[in-house]
Amino acid sequence: MMISTQRLSGIFTPNLVPLDAKGDIHEGELRRYVDWLIERGVHGLYPNGSTGEFTRFTVEERRRIIEIVCDQANGRVPVLAGAAEANVKETLRACEYYHELGARAVAIVAPFYYKLSPASVYAYFAEIGKNTPIDVTLYNIPLFASPIDVPTVRKLAENFPRIVAIKDSSGDIPHMIRMIKAVRPHRPEFSFLTGWDAALMPLLLIGCDGGTNATSGVVPEITRKLYDLTMAGRLDEARAVQYDLVDLFDTMIYSAEFPEGFRAAVELRGFRMGTGRQPLSAEQQTDLATLSTSLQCLLSSHGFVNQPVGGCPVPGATKGDLSDIVQNVVSELKKRGVL
Amino acid sequence: MMISTQRLSGIFTPNLVPLDAKGDIHEGELRRYVDWLIERGVHGLYPNGSTGEFTRFTVEERRRIIEIVCDQANGRVPVLAGAAEANVKETLRACEYYHELGARAVAIVAPFYYKLSPASVYAYFAEIGKNTPIDVTLYNIPLFASPIDVPTVRKLAENFPRIVAIKDSSGDIPHMIRMIKAVRPHRPEFSFLTGWDAALMPLLLIGCDGGTNATSGVVPEITRKLYDLTMAGRLDEARAVQYDLVDLFDTMIYSAEFPEGFRAAVELRGFRMGTGRQPLSAEQQTDLATLSTSLQCLLSSHGFVNQPVGGCPVPGATKGDLSDIVQNVVSELKKRGVL
Amino acid sequence: MMISTQRLSGIFTPNLVPLDAKGDIHEGELRRYVDWLIERGVHGLYPNGSTGEFTRFTVEERRRIIEIVCDQANGRVPVLAGAAEANVKETLRACEYYHELGARAVAIVAPFYYKLSPASVYAYFAEIGKNTPIDVTLYNIPLFASPIDVPTVRKLAENFPRIVAIKDSSGDIPHMIRMIKAVRPHRPEFSFLTGWDAALMPLLLIGCDGGTNATSGVVPEITRKLYDLTMAGRLDEARAVQYDLVDLFDTMIYSAEFPEGFRAAVELRGFRMGTGRQPLSAEQQTDLATLSTSLQCLLSSHGFVNQPVGGCPVPGATKGDLSDIVQNVVSELKKRGVL
Amino acid sequence: MMISTQRLSGIFTPNLVPLDAKGDIHEGELRRYVDWLIERGVHGLYPNGSTGEFTRFTVEERRRIIEIVCDQANGRVPVLAGAAEANVKETLRACEYYHELGARAVAIVAPFYYKLSPASVYAYFAEIGKNTPIDVTLYNIPLFASPIDVPTVRKLAENFPRIVAIKDSSGDIPHMIRMIKAVRPHRPEFSFLTGWDAALMPLLLIGCDGGTNATSGVVPEITRKLYDLTMAGRLDEARAVQYDLVDLFDTMIYSAEFPEGFRAAVELRGFRMGTGRQPLSAEQQTDLATLSTSLQCLLSSHGFVNQPVGGCPVPGATKGDLSDIVQNVVSELKKRGVL
Repeated sequence: MMISTQRLSGIFTPNLVPLDAKGDIHEGELRRYVDWLIERGVHGLYPNGSTGEFTRFTVEERRRIIEIVCDQANGRVPVLAGAAEANVKETLRACEYYHELGARAVAIVAPFYYKLSPASVYAYFAEIGKNTPIDVTLYNIPLFASPIDVPTVRKLAENFPRIVAIKDSSGDIPHMIRMIKAVRPHRPEFSFLTGWDAALMPLLLIGCDGGTNATSGVVPEITRKLYDLTMAGRLDEARAVQYDLVDLFDTMIYSAEFPEGFRAAVELRGFRMGTGRQPLSAEQQTDLATLSTSLQCLLSSHGFVNQPVGGCPVPGATKGDLSDIVQNVVSELKKRGVL
Repeated sequence: MMISTQRLSGIFTPNLVPLDAKGDIHEGELRRYVDWLIERGVHGLYPNGSTGEFTRFTVEERRRIIEIVCDQANGRVPVLAGAAEANVKETLRACEYYHELGARAVAIVAPFYYKLSPASVYAYFAEIGKNTPIDVTLYNIPLFASPIDVPTVRKLAENFPRIVAIKDSSGDIPHMIRMIKAVRPHRPEFSFLTGWDAALMPLLLIGCDGGTNATSGVVPEITRKLYDLTMAGRLDEARAVQYDLVDLFDTMIYSAEFPEGFRAAVELRGFRMGTGRQPLSAEQQTDLATLSTSLQCLLSSHGFVNQPVGGCPVPGATKGDLSDIVQNVVSELKKRGVL
Repeated sequence: MMISTQRLSGIFTPNLVPLDAKGDIHEGELRRYVDWLIERGVHGLYPNGSTGEFTRFTVEERRRIIEIVCDQANGRVPVLAGAAEANVKETLRACEYYHELGARAVAIVAPFYYKLSPASVYAYFAEIGKNTPIDVTLYNIPLFASPIDVPTVRKLAENFPRIVAIKDSSGDIPHMIRMIKAVRPHRPEFSFLTGWDAALMPLLLIGCDGGTNATSGVVPEITRKLYDLTMAGRLDEARAVQYDLVDLFDTMIYSAEFPEGFRAAVELRGFRMGTGRQPLSAEQQTDLATLSTSLQCLLSSHGFVNQPVGGCPVPGATKGDLSDIVQNVVSELKKRGVL
Repeated sequence: MMISTQRLSGIFTPNLVPLDAKGDIHEGELRRYVDWLIERGVHGLYPNGSTGEFTRFTVEERRRIIEIVCDQANGRVPVLAGAAEANVKETLRACEYYHELGARAVAIVAPFYYKLSPASVYAYFAEIGKNTPIDVTLYNIPLFASPIDVPTVRKLAENFPRIVAIKDSSGDIPHMIRMIKAVRPHRPEFSFLTGWDAALMPLLLIGCDGGTNATSGVVPEITRKLYDLTMAGRLDEARAVQYDLVDLFDTMIYSAEFPEGFRAAVELRGFRMGTGRQPLSAEQQTDLATLSTSLQCLLSSHGFVNQPVGGCPVPGATKGDLSDIVQNVVSELKKRGVL
């Protein structure tokens, strides 16, 4: 068995899935979105994550999403494939299939619905760690699923070389420090990724290797810039970007039912996302309109959209690299009549 | 459209699913279990509930479970079929199929994993209420899924005649009172069921119509007796049974990962349940052995098993009705070599 | 040491404290309020409870409140005196003083601010139980203070005869059942009181001896009626009163910062409560005005105020006993110019 | 009114209070402890904080503690005096007195016991902000008291120049970012202090001015070193110290009832702390013995105690009573240039 010795690192985008008019996966738009993300510098893709609404797709659809993303990425960036299914047997089947498709690793959320004890969470991942043909990233998101505590991570890392990383969306910094202290001495190549964009900079500074950050699906340029500035030790600049990212993140995550705020924002970047699978009330749809305006203002202030709506201050004429990138995109979107 | 005008009422058993040596549904044992429950007086069956571990089966298995239970019940008692799937479209497909199979109604848990706002919970059930061909029971279990609040229940009951009941597992009595007050004036046939066995008697006394109670899958005689005594106003006797049921319920629910305690207890009643789908550690399996002993003592003290293990006091010779019922069962189980 | 052998039982009113224009204790109004409550049938008084805002008074004021209430009650009803102070030594001093004043027992909330483990909660009450000259009621209110769990109550009851009761404000019925099962066999005279008005009827039916209910400070006639009907087994009538009490309770507890809703309601019954010690915003004060109107409508529909404000339907002429009682009070209040 | 224009910054020690054999404040030991802390480099003192168990002292004792600390500090470092009392009037009295005593500012925790809404929290601090003669630090500790949310901090900072800082013990980094973003543009001299030692380095890096850190009462040398390294941008060294501080912090905070672990640790540094006011069980006292050993090992590995107990690697040679041990260590550390 060959074990990869390089840590998973950088920004992995937990990408949304565009839907067509019938509510099915919009393959063309998904492929175009994958290209767009890679071109803007994300280090990897993470389909079938929480942002990607994996629970709202069928088994067959989840497989189709990985097929499309792996095929379209085509080796340009690694794919971290969400592989949680109804039980261990079904999850292992997904692991096998995604391995065949060329995914770099899978990410598996702790069992959800039932709230399991640490012993059961361990037993679940142990069974997977023992049998998986592909590297596994543990996925800790205590808001939605059974928590994976520090001793569990430590024991899993010690016993199963195929378990190579943890993605933690708690945003709890001491918890991350405890995990790194418990695991890294024995597994130096084990990777620690954060899913909490609002604390990306400080988490990188205390030792994380990267993140699976929903904002990178909306403003890959900003999230990537934050990563680069932080890793380069340019702290004052990084802090300013982190502060702005908190605004953006808060707007998207608290103004609408997750991940509808992100869906609206990706629409603003020029993709037809379709109607989400969770029905929304008329009132909630109005909220999304307001959110879109607010988001466009935010994006505009960072130079990512050149035609603000609703009275936003129009950004200055010259914006430098980031703005240039956006100008091209925007022009293209205009041609297609999206903006 | 014909709407049934009789309230769902009585004790519906959220039955577990026996598994065979390969971990698949054990059809023969499931059919035998269905018969056993009906013979012991449960008013209905509730497959694919939380106790039935619906999330750990595949779509195809969930359908097969309902096929078997409806076929075996064969009209003797109504079947309340758990029908929650990945999204509204898939859930409606399940509703249609279970309607064809002759289920009395479906039960649909509020969306889980993501924690949704009341507006989204309403929108979800509204879409279902509008399109379902079969009566729908809302299922509120805030411990595991997005909560369904009182205004949401009220609006759903007002707008969708096909929504005919709510099963509430919160155990929160004032909440139940608020729901009944909000709904019953306009929908007198709407039914309120509780899933919290430890408060069954008081919930019936403040106005509930029945329960979907996991203990009734283990000791249907006791749960049914509690229901009958309470409805007959024999409060002192009912209270004594409720007190004992709390012991039993606590032992099963807190001594092991839910619903493993119930699985162990059903084994004690003479069914081969197989190994559950959630892997357990060696230590947890030892815990189950201890639990089994403890449970057998409890059952024994109620006269439900005549050969206590581990030094339990052997129950007296004459036990009256309940004990007689059990003696017959136990003899039968002995013939089959289960005890 | 003589130990009282009669259980504390019935409805104890956790009375508010009227304040004068300077924000000090309004002794005259407090005495008048004590008389009014006793005349309307409450079984006991419970000054310095959470409703009585004990934390917002100084040590000296808390002592003064007990002096006034004991003096005014003058043996007509027992006084349960809230005695929690900064630490065990100070709390014991309060116990001694309230014993001298003739209180029937003290009530002591579990330590708050710090969240203590069961072992520490036990150690705290053990120290008190060992040294108190007066009977002690444990006070469990997990929303505000460290929880007192079932094994802790059991051990305290077993070891300290001076600990004679628990007041539980969790409203959790299975928890109450577990406590009664754990304690009553060894301490048949130990009393269980509930502080959660919204579940008073079912809690009495499963074995409670009474309650310390904030609604009894506002509508003593209704709370007392609910108690009497329930204890007499007149369940249909009791249920109807319980349903109404939930409305009243919810209005007072959720419409304003606790216990301001109760303060406003007591004003409506004819007492000058003064301005509470917790400052309120202008907006919150407007809310109270709305609440007052709403409360008056509710009271009016129960026949407790004869001059509704804001368009409430005026109650019918003949109302029976409760209404008659109220009419007299109202007339008297009118004479004093309060209404 | 003169407003200080320099931000509160650096490490303020929330000091414990030594008690004598009778359980009263041990003035001599407290004075010695104040000297010891100042000599080891803490930037300020913070008596009557949560670590200082302010709720377990009487009003008179709280005043005495501030008198002693101000007198002993004697201007060498600023004193931040915990001033929360039973209500606004009493709290303002404390503010006045601590102002007379020469405290630099007071710290006032949000109202506790009752869980207040943001509007009430605002009204409470507004009343204080309007009338205080001394600078006020808001104290947010949502684990124990009503939370102070971002809009509340923003409005208080805008309206009351006497409110000059917030101490936040949530450890929530995005929350801190949101507060800084909301307040600093309009109040550049407003200070942000963290009370969560386990995230001190990252919180300083995203913009905090310092901390009120309980570890600084035990190992002032380490906490000060972490502060200095972080502020100097020596991130690799700072990270290593932060990692060690998490161990120390976790050991003290999770191994015993807070703040007993800190009390035991300060004993190890050579102070007679006496028996805490919260009674402990025999079992809990054993736990403390174990903790002491564990702590001594930890301190030893950092070079702060030269005669470890229980098999720890022995760094030094001689043995004596605790204070002798510490003095030797300190001398040795000074020789090595660590202090």
